[in-house]
Amino acid sequence: MASASPTPILKDELDIVIPTIRSLDFLEMWRPFFQPYHLIIVQDGDPSKTIKVPDGFDYELYNRNDINRILGPKASCISFKDSACRCFGYMVSKKKYVFTIDDDCFVAKDPSGKEINALEQHIKNLLSPSTPFFFNTLYDPYREGADFVRGYPFSLREGVPTAVSHGLWLNIPDYDAPTQLVKPRERNTRYVDAIMTVPKGTLFPMCGMNLAFNRELIGPAMYFGLMGDGQPIGRYDDMWAGWCTKVICDHLGLGIKTGLPYIWHSKASNPFVNLKKEYKGIYWQEELIPFFQSVTLPKDCTTVQKCYLELSKQVKAKLGKVDEYFNKLADAMITWIEAWDELNPSGASVEVANGPKK
Amino acid sequence: MASASPTPILKDELDIVIPTIRSLDFLEMWRPFFQPYHLIIVQDGDPSKTIKVPDGFDYELYNRNDINRILGPKASCISFKDSACRCFGYMVSKKKYVFTIDDDCFVAKDPSGKEINALEQHIKNLLSPSTPFFFNTLYDPYREGADFVRGYPFSLREGVPTAVSHGLWLNIPDYDAPTQLVKPRERNTRYVDAIMTVPKGTLFPMCGMNLAFNRELIGPAMYFGLMGDGQPIGRYDDMWAGWCTKVICDHLGLGIKTGLPYIWHSKASNPFVNLKKEYKGIYWQEELIPFFQSVTLPKDCTTVQKCYLELSKQVKAKLGKVDEYFNKLADAMITWIEAWDELNPSGASVEVANGPKK
Repeated sequence: MASASPTPILKDELDIVIPTIRSLDFLEMWRPFFQPYHLIIVQDGDPSKTIKVPDGFDYELYNRNDINRILGPKASCISFKDSACRCFGYMVSKKKYVFTIDDDCFVAKDPSGKEINALEQHIKNLLSPSTPFFFNTLYDPYREGADFVRGYPFSLREGVPTAVSHGLWLNIPDYDAPTQLVKPRERNTRYVDAIMTVPKGTLFPMCGMNLAFNRELIGPAMYFGLMGDGQPIGRYDDMWAGWCTKVICDHLGLGIKTGLPYIWHSKASNPFVNLKKEYKGIYWQEELIPFFQSVTLPKDCTTVQKCYLELSKQVKAKLGKVDEYFNKLADAMITWIEAWDELNPSGASVEVANGPKK
Repeated sequence: MASASPTPILKDELDIVIPTIRSLDFLEMWRPFFQPYHLIIVQDGDPSKTIKVPDGFDYELYNRNDINRILGPKASCISFKDSACRCFGYMVSKKKYVFTIDDDCFVAKDPSGKEINALEQHIKNLLSPSTPFFFNTLYDPYREGADFVRGYPFSLREGVPTAVSHGLWLNIPDYDAPTQLVKPRERNTRYVDAIMTVPKGTLFPMCGMNLAFNRELIGPAMYFGLMGDGQPIGRYDDMWAGWCTKVICDHLGLGIKTGLPYIWHSKASNPFVNLKKEYKGIYWQEELIPFFQSVTLPKDCTTVQKCYLELSKQVKAKLGKVDEYFNKLADAMITWIEAWDELNPSGASVEVANGPKK
């Protein structure tokens, strides 16, 4: 097991970002896997509350006062009373990779009963290429025991860099409020032993519960929007980030993988509360999806920042009429990029500019 | 197990099409699953050879003399000395569904050791909708224990009719000759418990080894091309059918599923022989894929036949310059449709015209 290995992979190149409102006892179970890594804890809600972190973890913790102090007026782009605040952690990280996980997610077991090192699998996903331009029926061709099948064009077998690794959940599936209400007892017990690239041109619902990404390649697109306190919706933070990220990855020739690793999602959130947070999103979404399906970014958008600012323009132009909220969100997208560049002055933008092009 | 059930599903609505050059002893293993169904055996090669079929199976058998007699000059569109001849079976079937399988494919076992009723799973796949317009991270949302995840647009949850079910292979994976040569010992041992829709706009390599489809919805697109005797390539028959089928399904709003069921593929074909058959395809393919990725069909193509004839025109116009072979193939595509309509005078075309539109 990698957890027993003397030098964990990417130890000095990866931060674990955890948004929370409570003490982080859940880390005990993750100790063998997470302890070698640095944690960035984003405390949501009341800043005077003390968050207990189990001994032996290396971490930095930011509460709302810290966010306001560090970002000044630009702190307005960071959500409050919503786990969307986690994206502040992406911004202050100085590492190449980020793994983010919810504090109600525990270590899952594979069908043989072995505890799954989710982080190790995410790293494997991020370090192997993606194949967005053609579908491989045997799933990830770079996995041991697999390859490209007959009929897969040879010119596409080099793949493209992987920007995002989207992991899944055993036990409580990530359902919306209506589905939670209709199927209160449904549990995900199916362990699907696969990783695959989400094809180019196809949108997917990105869940922030168990997610890793290459900050240098895609970090500035991982904005979780305006949710929670003072906002008309919630629970669309990761979805929004996922749609923006997918469109930008498609444009820049980057890949997104989904599938393994699984975590054990311990408890369903309250479906009545969720319904209140989601209901506007549920109908707005019907206009958002066609918007994102038809977005095109101009050729001179060669960095994630440029892509994201262009996207904010199009959001304002085309979604502003859906609801005034999207004008606010479009402005917040600009603020987010300004804040990102302020905290990451010489880094990501330049490196991404030298990254893969379409 | 469905095999033990008194009335097997779709017993009178499904034909099993098997191309072969040898006695069909492999059917013994499939007896519990296939015996209730009607078989269409397409004998390839020397028509004077006798193909032995185990007792108790209900079948019709066609050899080359039969094909020539039934189709007359139009028999030129049916390949000889290549398993591409199987598509003759699709044409003479009078059933709504077709399952086709190679005679070196045996019953696989799932991880619990239970024998897999591949046909039953194909039928389940074909009878449940597909979701080509948006990716569901928990795979087939219509499977027991699964659903659409948070963020999946509600307007898309009805899905579209499924036209094709593409099954996979344990043991010998479906690799091309170069990969066979490089990895002679690779075996597929990974049982991935998933079915998924190939997203709209994404091409995939369709393998004919373990394949089912709705003939009424897509039959006329399932032409396996000109391969084998007198032709410059082989082993691209199913690929060709898959690319044409995918483009037409995307246009008509039909779905293609891939994943379960697995069969046990017993023996690898000779990689040296395969290389000879494939090598032209390997480089032609680099031009075929961009062609199929950019094909658009006009709105008035409302039946599979109309789509297919339009596709043959575009093949001639755009691929004729790649090699003279594609002019021949384009003509054969027209002949195929003429022959299909001759043998299916009042059937598929009209019904498909009443089917789902884009």
